[in-house]
Amino acid sequence: MLALAGYPLSIRCRHIGGPDDTSAREVADYVVAPQGDADALVKFARSVDVVTYESENVPVEAAEQIAQHARIYPSARVLRVSQDRLFEKQFFASHHIATAPFARIDSRADLDAAIERIGLPAVLKTRRLGYDGKGQAVIRSREDADAAWKQHGSVPLILEGFVRFEREVSIIAVRSPSGDTRFYPIVENHHEAGILRLSLAPAPQLTPALQHKAEALAATVLEQLDYVGVLAIELFQCGDALLANEMAPRVHNSGHWTIEGAVTSQFENHLRAILDLPLGNTDAIGHAAMINLIGSIPTLPDMLRFGDTHVHLYGKTPRPGRKVGHITVLNEDAVMLRKRVEEIRARLALQD
Amino acid sequence: MLALAGYPLSIRCRHIGGPDDTSAREVADYVVAPQGDADALVKFARSVDVVTYESENVPVEAAEQIAQHARIYPSARVLRVSQDRLFEKQFFASHHIATAPFARIDSRADLDAAIERIGLPAVLKTRRLGYDGKGQAVIRSREDADAAWKQHGSVPLILEGFVRFEREVSIIAVRSPSGDTRFYPIVENHHEAGILRLSLAPAPQLTPALQHKAEALAATVLEQLDYVGVLAIELFQCGDALLANEMAPRVHNSGHWTIEGAVTSQFENHLRAILDLPLGNTDAIGHAAMINLIGSIPTLPDMLRFGDTHVHLYGKTPRPGRKVGHITVLNEDAVMLRKRVEEIRARLALQD
Repeated sequence: MLALAGYPLSIRCRHIGGPDDTSAREVADYVVAPQGDADALVKFARSVDVVTYESENVPVEAAEQIAQHARIYPSARVLRVSQDRLFEKQFFASHHIATAPFARIDSRADLDAAIERIGLPAVLKTRRLGYDGKGQAVIRSREDADAAWKQHGSVPLILEGFVRFEREVSIIAVRSPSGDTRFYPIVENHHEAGILRLSLAPAPQLTPALQHKAEALAATVLEQLDYVGVLAIELFQCGDALLANEMAPRVHNSGHWTIEGAVTSQFENHLRAILDLPLGNTDAIGHAAMINLIGSIPTLPDMLRFGDTHVHLYGKTPRPGRKVGHITVLNEDAVMLRKRVEEIRARLALQD
Repeated sequence: MLALAGYPLSIRCRHIGGPDDTSAREVADYVVAPQGDADALVKFARSVDVVTYESENVPVEAAEQIAQHARIYPSARVLRVSQDRLFEKQFFASHHIATAPFARIDSRADLDAAIERIGLPAVLKTRRLGYDGKGQAVIRSREDADAAWKQHGSVPLILEGFVRFEREVSIIAVRSPSGDTRFYPIVENHHEAGILRLSLAPAPQLTPALQHKAEALAATVLEQLDYVGVLAIELFQCGDALLANEMAPRVHNSGHWTIEGAVTSQFENHLRAILDLPLGNTDAIGHAAMINLIGSIPTLPDMLRFGDTHVHLYGKTPRPGRKVGHITVLNEDAVMLRKRVEEIRARLALQD
């Protein structure tokens, strides 16, 4: 989607990655390189104007190598903070951004002490490489703690206290090298089994006060990291309060609605930011819902028979739990939109 | 723009053409073949599901060759009618669609007789291969007639009477193999030196009656040609009447506004039609203006500093009179839109 957003602006993308990324290979120039191939990275970096990434699991060392030969946005420092749940939470805390209570877990003793301090239920998470609910275990009892430790104890962990939140929301922000910053309206996210299923944009009943609070929080993160590009921050809303859950230093699934639902998409704005071009208008156009296609794809004729939807397929082979596309639904009215989402899900037999 | 519209639907385009089409080569698979290479055409046709074209100047013979090996939409018959101004006008006339008075000109005597019948001023046009005002000469006097004959007399011609029209408009329609048909709102087109400069969509002061008249006219053309794909018909508006000027059997410059200004773009709808997928919603979203970039391209930072525009560059080298991109301006209010168009043109030093 980044490469596709670039074409109309005469921005051409070249990708580097493993041999299996069919999505990227079909839409733009693609260099296959095994992870850790420093020569390939250097050659790649020298062949482009600026480098970015679409996963926070890129090795920090790779980003640092690239930085010696090309601009890379967001920076290697951003990557270091955001790919480790502990560093991320510590970063939030050090800038007075509220989070769930958390503790670093390097041993079984750490875990017991943390449960004592934070209480149960709590969630034990791997610090790195978790996504879509992977690498997580909910602990409700001593027995759960034993099982979770047995399952995950071999890698660095973090324990996070359960938050009694009303809903999960996220804010997508974008910042250019000159410090110009824009924010999209907060969206409401619905997960199932740890995987994002549905985003509603703007979040229903979004108040200016809540939007302002999220923007202030995101502005702090952007400034403190001297951030360049699109950033997503996932938040828990508890009444008027927002707790930071995690951040993603990249275009984000909860921002896919912006392709049709906002004046400028997150993809175009990410390209604009990393190329130091003027940022685009982030206003929403009416109301939008983004329904993820997970594990399977309905037929094109079935998906294209609605007059209020846009279909995006990623060219990926369906596998259980894999995001293979999304459908954006647009409506001028938030209540009608919700109704349409349920109708469309039912007609396409998509799970909630 | 067709190839880009295909990616999100997992529709992959392969192009065949000459060595100089840099636009198409950068966005999708591209087969270079000299014109008239029948073997290359056959091989190409056998490698795809369906063939279409984006110029009415494709040789009819090529379309017929392809038709023996693959579906081709619109059909070779459509191509034959629409690439010859005389056949086109005769087709309109035979289906009771009003046009300017016209006459077939094969000799100087034909020209004199036609001027006698139609009167002056009139326009002498080559029947084939004219576009953007090329191959045309206005005749206001006997001397003009001599000069026009000297300039164009070596090829088949048509003389067309001058029409005192109020404005030029166009309608974009789309039809699927099953006969399902959709129409975009009429747009108002502004030409300068024979080249489209600006389209306003929907056409200012568009009445339901005028839209209905244009749709009925377009429906006749689509049905009579058993048409599949997007069709553009350029029209002269004279009071309540519409005169057909010409048709283009393809996605059309006056429909580029649909990328952001309509629910479904003409590009996506053309793909849907030729693949026999359900057609998309053709409703306009507010008001849109399409400003062509002709002969030169302002800098990206200059073009991206507006909050209400979308930039589309075609990857073509600028040459005088060459369309190298367009800017779409969106506004909820038609009057404000017009004002913004003038402001943006002035700030980018684009000519009227």
